[in-house]
Parts: sequence; C-alpha cells; structure tokens
Amino acid sequence: MIGKAFAPSHITGFFYAHDDPDPLKMGSCGCGFTLEAGVHTASWPSNATEVYVDGMPSEASTTRTVIELLTDKPVHVESDMDMPVGGGFGASGAGAFSTALAVNRALGLGKTYNELSYAAHVAEVKNRTGLGDVAGMTLGGLVIRLVPGAPFTLDRIPVEAKDIYCVHFGPISTKSVLSDPREKALINEAGKKCLKELLRQPTFEQFMRLSRKFSVDTGLISPKALDTVEAVEAFDGMASMAMLGDTVFSTIPEGLSGNVIKSRISLCGARPIGANNE
Amino acid sequence: MIGKAFAPSHITGFFYAHDDPDPLKMGSCGCGFTLEAGVHTASWPSNATEVYVDGMPSEASTTRTVIELLTDKPVHVESDMDMPVGGGFGASGAGAFSTALAVNRALGLGKTYNELSYAAHVAEVKNRTGLGDVAGMTLGGLVIRLVPGAPFTLDRIPVEAKDIYCVHFGPISTKSVLSDPREKALINEAGKKCLKELLRQPTFEQFMRLSRKFSVDTGLISPKALDTVEAVEAFDGMASMAMLGDTVFSTIPEGLSGNVIKSRISLCGARPIGANNE
Repeated sequence: MIGKAFAPSHITGFFYAHDDPDPLKMGSCGCGFTLEAGVHTASWPSNATEVYVDGMPSEASTTRTVIELLTDKPVHVESDMDMPVGGGFGASGAGAFSTALAVNRALGLGKTYNELSYAAHVAEVKNRTGLGDVAGMTLGGLVIRLVPGAPFTLDRIPVEAKDIYCVHFGPISTKSVLSDPREKALINEAGKKCLKELLRQPTFEQFMRLSRKFSVDTGLISPKALDTVEAVEAFDGMASMAMLGDTVFSTIPEGLSGNVIKSRISLCGARPIGANNE
Repeated sequence: MIGKAFAPSHITGFFYAHDDPDPLKMGSCGCGFTLEAGVHTASWPSNATEVYVDGMPSEASTTRTVIELLTDKPVHVESDMDMPVGGGFGASGAGAFSTALAVNRALGLGKTYNELSYAAHVAEVKNRTGLGDVAGMTLGGLVIRLVPGAPFTLDRIPVEAKDIYCVHFGPISTKSVLSDPREKALINEAGKKCLKELLRQPTFEQFMRLSRKFSVDTGLISPKALDTVEAVEAFDGMASMAMLGDTVFSTIPEGLSGNVIKSRISLCGARPIGANNE
C-alpha cells in the first residue's frame, strides 16, 4: 500500500517563541503563509526504514523522528522538495508532516489529521528545526498563530492565492539565533508587539509591513537581504525576510536577482494525495 | 472595489444538534465533507443592498443576515451556485460564508477569517438553515465536529480529493425534522454513538458505514434514497443520505440515475478569490 501526501512550504514573517519542557506545548506565535511550492512524499511498508530526499538517502532527522512517533514498523519514505532546506521555508516541517500523512495511509494507522499534525510538530521541536510551521500548514493561507504549541489556536487573514517571489541566499542557524538570551528577548518583545498590531489591522499589507519592521528591529535581516527588500520597494513592491532563513519573500519579481522561486499563496494545507495524484 | 470568494458545498453524514439561546454556541457535532462544487460570490459597494442568486433577485435570508451582521453599508451581492438549495449541500451556509468573505474585501472591513466564519454560522442558526456546515467549510476535507458552535473545535479524517457523486430528489424541511422532540432525541442519540464509533476508527469507509446506519436508524432516509443506496451497494460502492436533504451521495456513479452531480472532495475550505480568479 502506497501512501502519498503533500505539505506546502510555510514562511513566517514575524514570531515569538515559547519554551516548554513538553514539546507539545512548545512552539511559537506569530504570522506566516503557506506556498504552493512544497514537499511531496510517498511511503510504503519496507524491511527497514529508509528516508530519501530528492532521490538521495538522507538524514532527515525531523522526518525520522515523526516516523518513530507514529510506528515501530519499518517504512520506505521518499520526499521531493520544491524548496531548499534551511531557507526559512519550513522544509523540515513539510517533510515531516507530509511523511506523517503518507505513512498513516501506507500502514493504515487510522490516525486523525490533528494527531498527525501534532506528531509532526513534536518532531520539529525535538529536532529544533521549527516551532510554528506545522501549525500554519494545517490550514493554508495567511495563518496567525495565537497560542504556542498544540492544540493549535489559529486564525487567518483572508487573502487570495496571490503570487509570491522568493530568493534564497543561504541558511541561517536557527539554533544559534535562538540560543542567545538577549537576542531571544529582543525577538520575543518585537514579535509580541507585531502580533498585537496585526490583530488591530489584520490585512496582508499590514502583515508585510510588520514583518519588515520585525526583521530590522531584531537585527535578524542580513545586509544582502535588506538591500534586496529595498530594491523591491523601489519598484513599489513589498518584501521581507523569511524567519529563519536568509531568504527574501516579495510580492513582485522586480528587485530580485539570482535564482528566483515563483510560487503562490496556497489556500490549502497539508493533505493526502490519491493514487492518481488527486 | 469588487470582492470575490468561494465556499465549497458541505454534506453532513451524521450529526447531533445542540440548542442554545446564544446562536454562537448553538450548532451540531458530527462528520461531513466539503465538495469542489460550491458557491461563487462577488460583491461591491452599492446604493442599496441587493442579493442575486443564479442571476435572479433572491430572498437568500441567511446571506442577508450575514451582511447585516457585518456592516450597515449597502452592498450588491451576487452568488452563483453549483448545487441546489435545500438538498443537504449546505448551500445557504456556503452562500453566507462566501458572501462574508466577499463583502469583507469589497468594503475593506478588516475582519479575520474566524470572525467571518462565526458571522456566517450565526446567520445560518438564526435562519435555521444549518448548524454545522460553516464549521466544515472552514477547513475543507472530511471534517469532524467535536464540539457544537463557535469557536469551532474540529478534526479531520485524512482523505484525498476523491470523486463523489450525488443525486438530489427534493428538499426536506429542516425545521419540521428538528421540531419533533422524539425525532430529535432519536437523532441525537444515534449521532452521539456515531461520533464515538468514528473516533475509534477514523477512516473514510467507517464514516460512510456510520452515515448509512444513521440515516436508517433515525428514519430520516426516504424510501427512494434507500433504494438508491442499495443500488450503489450492489455495484460495491458506498453511499448514504445527505443531512438534511433528499440527496444521496455515493463513491461511484453506478446505481444512480437522473441528474447526477459529479464532484470531488475539496481539501480547501472557503476562501477569497482574486481579481483574476486565482
């Protein structure tokens, strides 16, 4: 039995983190959006667990953790990614979440969607690859995370499937960013303010403005990324930095150079895919 | 400013109702699924509020209520429906929800998705056109309603976008069904059992079996609908009755006759549509 699933990318515009000894309660609040660029995963029962990413055997620690959380049975898992890992696209979360959905089908585990999403969230937290991406992926769209951890307490800013352009410069070490206590405090203060402001005026444009401000006030944005944001703004577009990757996301392609990833906001979240890819 | 939005159909397989003087807390628990067949709505500011459905001026009481709940400003609203009203497709809820999203954009109301969904839910309850459809439409897919009313407490059974075939025989009066206290008690007891059973084995097949059992045990299924269900089963398909309409939904077309509506489970919920229909 082959199980197939898809999970969209998720880009966070601003956030604040919440630590907790329980990985289910640990997470982040903030706001981000899902993209149609994402991760496709297929899985089937196997003699030993194997995880392939883009055709190569892979460590894929978050994916391996979610498999362990769901089953003792060995499975073959292969994921194909539309986006780079470490770029702030939530690739690890999308890999884990699509794997959870695919394995659930492949092995007939009979889990509900929430159960699978919580397993993927816990896998992310345990591997320190993300805090809020899986939550965003459960809904699709421009998702507001109101309370950290699971069960996910979410709202959305109504937005159509608009085009989003991304350019990725290189990875940022999430661990190093979040381990400096002063940086962490700065991020959390700025993130809380942003969320308050966004709820006063919950529009896409306000999200973009607050994200941009957050990226600068926290010092998280690289000089290259800031230059790129300003270049986009010179063409009357809106842009900011993906949290946490050296990636700029923009409403227009003008001002971006290099390998530009064009995608659209995905109003559909992570989901099973049928045998005929429906 | 033109606002456009789409809401999928929602078909409930089994349910139990919860009364409450507060329309926000009134609702139903149970399980149902959304379909790609749905309601497209466009709205723009106007001198007087006008509501058109399929090109004709319409009473559309649930839609008019949601407009009143959201704004004093007059708006033009036109909805185009892929499905019949009163057929158990949640047409009134989809009309109201897509209208809420469209009016929010047309008038720049700056509401969040949850706020708009609650307004649509309240409009449904006040007009007695539905109890749980809007909740299902917020997620898309095969949606389990765990707690009645808002905020919606939901889970999903992971399922791919499988084909669903429907045939509609005629309307059922929701008011008359739910006003007989003995019938109501029977429905509620059967619905609670179904939900418990479904959570033990949360699969699409279990949902279909429990829905079929519910439709027969409550006496809600018409003789014609039951004949149709049995005809489908003779071809090894699964089928049941849409709650609350004289409509049969089926996994296969064989066994159905007359005007068969072919659609697919929609894994995307109600959403804004862009100017270019994206």
